[in-house]
Amino acid sequence: MRKNLPSVETFVSGILAGDRVLLARAITLVESALPAHELLARQIIDALLEKQNIPAATLRVGISGAPGAGKSTFIEALGTYLTEREEKVAVLAIDPSSALSQGSILGDKTRMEQLSASPLAFIRPSPSGNTLGGVARKTRETILLAEAAGYHNVLIETVGVGQSETAVHSMSDVFLLLLIPGAGDELQGIKRGIVEMADILVVNKADGDRVTLANQARMHYLNATHLLPPKPSGWSPQVLACSALEKTNIEKVWETVLIYRDSTLANGFFAENRRKQAAYWLHESLRQGLERLLAEMPELTALEQAVLEGRISPFSAAAQVLGKLQAKSMF
Amino acid sequence: MRKNLPSVETFVSGILAGDRVLLARAITLVESALPAHELLARQIIDALLEKQNIPAATLRVGISGAPGAGKSTFIEALGTYLTEREEKVAVLAIDPSSALSQGSILGDKTRMEQLSASPLAFIRPSPSGNTLGGVARKTRETILLAEAAGYHNVLIETVGVGQSETAVHSMSDVFLLLLIPGAGDELQGIKRGIVEMADILVVNKADGDRVTLANQARMHYLNATHLLPPKPSGWSPQVLACSALEKTNIEKVWETVLIYRDSTLANGFFAENRRKQAAYWLHESLRQGLERLLAEMPELTALEQAVLEGRISPFSAAAQVLGKLQAKSMF
Repeated sequence: MRKNLPSVETFVSGILAGDRVLLARAITLVESALPAHELLARQIIDALLEKQNIPAATLRVGISGAPGAGKSTFIEALGTYLTEREEKVAVLAIDPSSALSQGSILGDKTRMEQLSASPLAFIRPSPSGNTLGGVARKTRETILLAEAAGYHNVLIETVGVGQSETAVHSMSDVFLLLLIPGAGDELQGIKRGIVEMADILVVNKADGDRVTLANQARMHYLNATHLLPPKPSGWSPQVLACSALEKTNIEKVWETVLIYRDSTLANGFFAENRRKQAAYWLHESLRQGLERLLAEMPELTALEQAVLEGRISPFSAAAQVLGKLQAKSMF
Repeated sequence: MRKNLPSVETFVSGILAGDRVLLARAITLVESALPAHELLARQIIDALLEKQNIPAATLRVGISGAPGAGKSTFIEALGTYLTEREEKVAVLAIDPSSALSQGSILGDKTRMEQLSASPLAFIRPSPSGNTLGGVARKTRETILLAEAAGYHNVLIETVGVGQSETAVHSMSDVFLLLLIPGAGDELQGIKRGIVEMADILVVNKADGDRVTLANQARMHYLNATHLLPPKPSGWSPQVLACSALEKTNIEKVWETVLIYRDSTLANGFFAENRRKQAAYWLHESLRQGLERLLAEMPELTALEQAVLEGRISPFSAAAQVLGKLQAKSMF
C-alpha cells in the first residue's frame, strides 16, 4: 500500500506549507495499525523535527472538565477568539472511550460549527484504540504534525475521568480544568489529583442567573488551591470565571495562559517539562511496542496454557518467553 | 555464588519435608536480585509444581485494613486459632513502602509473639523492592514455596493504601477487609474500590465499650454492601464483628472464610480465579522482565539524549530500540 502514498518528501514539504489535506493524511498514517504506515509516519515526523525545532514557538493547552462543564462550547469560544486574531489553532482530543464509541469527543464537528468553518482552525477527533496509552500516543504524534503545519496553538481536549487527564497532562504545556458553577468536586466527579494537576481552573457558565453561583464557586476553588502543594513550575494555580456561551472573559483566560507560558519560559520549567515529556513518551512507546511484540509471540499461548494448568509457574514461563525473544526477528 | 547453595533437589525435598530453614533460604533466593538466584528460585518452584498440584488443597487469604484497624492483632488471633487446631499457617505481607522502610509490615515479629512461637506458623516480612509490582511478584512466588512446605493456609497482609490491595487481591482466594468501629470509610481512608474488593468485612475491636459502636458499624457496612454490584464469584459480601484483642468471634470469621471457599469451589469460581491470577502474573512478570531489559540497554541512553534535544521523535527512537533488541543476547 506504501506506493499508493505520497513520498516522505511530499508529506514534509506539504505539511510545512500548511497543506491541510496532507496533514490529515499524515495523521491517518499515525493512527493506522499497518506497520508500513507507522514507519512512514515516523519518517515524516522525524524529517519535520530535523527541519525545524517545532516546540520552541508552540503552545500545547490541555483542557479537561466533567461532562456538562461545556468543554466543546468553551473550546469553540477559545478557538474562535484565537482565529479572530489570525492565530492558527488545532483542536485534538483524547477519548479513552473511543475504543468503544470510535471517538465520541469531537466526533461531531458540528458541535464547533463556527470554529470548524475557519481556515485557521484544524479539528481532529480522538483516535480510536484498544488502550488509553495507544490512543494517547497517537494524539501525541499528531501534535507534532499539527505544529509542523503551523498550528502553533494546540488545544487537547479530554473527558474528566482521571487517567485520560494524566495522559493529556503528559503532553500539555499548561493544563486547564473547566468547572461548573455551584457543583462541588464530588458532584463534578473530579478527583482531587486532577484539581492538583490544573494550572488554571475555569468556572464556566458564569452567565444569566448563574453569575453569582459562578463567583461563589470561583472563591471556593480559590481557597482550595491555596491548600495545594506548590507546583514544580513555581506557578500558583489561577481560578477564573467565564461564559463560553456569551464569550465573556475568554480573553482573560487566554491572557492567563500566556502569562503562565511566559513565566515558565522565564524560569526554564517550560523547556524542562517538554524534555521530561519527550522522555516519558520514549519509554511509553517502548512499553507499548514490547507489549505488542509479546502479543504476537506464538510461544506465549502454549506457555500460558501450561501456566493455567499449573504445570509451570508464571514466573518461569515469563523467563522462557524472554529467553526466546532474542531468537525472533519480530522487531 | 551458586555452588555455595544447596542443589535444586536438596531444596525441593527439604521444602516438601517442611524444612523451615530451606524454605526461608528459598524465599531469600526469590527476593534476591542476582540472576543466578532468580534462576535457582524458578527451578525450585517449577520442580515443586511438578511434584504436586499445590493450589488444590490450599487457601490464600488476603487481609487489609486502614492503619489502626489492628491487622497484626487480628492475624495473631486468626493464626493462633488455626495453629491451635493443628493447622499450619504462613503469614506473608506486601508492603509498598518497604522500598523505603525495608519492610515495615511484619518486620517486627514480636508484634505476633504467640503466633511466631508456634512451630506450625511461618511468618515472613514483606520483601523490599523498588516497585509495588516487584514486591508483589516476590510475595506471589513465596506463596508457592510456603504452600509446598505444607503451609496450606496463607494469610497475606497489606496496608490499606489502594494499589497494594489490588496486588494482594491478585493472589488471594478470598479478601478480608478489617474495619474500625464507628469510623466511616473516609475516616478509615478506605477507597470505595477496596470495599468492593472485599468478600468478608470484619469490624474489629468489638470489645469493651466499643461493642455497640462495632455493631452499628457492622449494620452500616451491611447496608453498604447491599448497594454493591454483584460479584463474579456469586458471593454476597458478609459483614462480621470480632475482637482480635479478646479473641471473640474469630472462629466465626474463619468459618465464613471456609463457607466462601466451599461455595466458590462448588461453582467453579475458585479454580477459575486461580487460573486468571496465574495468567495475570505471567503477563506481569513479562512486563517487569522487559522493563528491566530495557533499563540495561546502552543504546537507550544515546537515543534518549537525541529525544531530549528534539533531534528525533520519541516514537522513532522507540522503534530504533525495539529494532536493536533482537540483535542483542541480553535475554
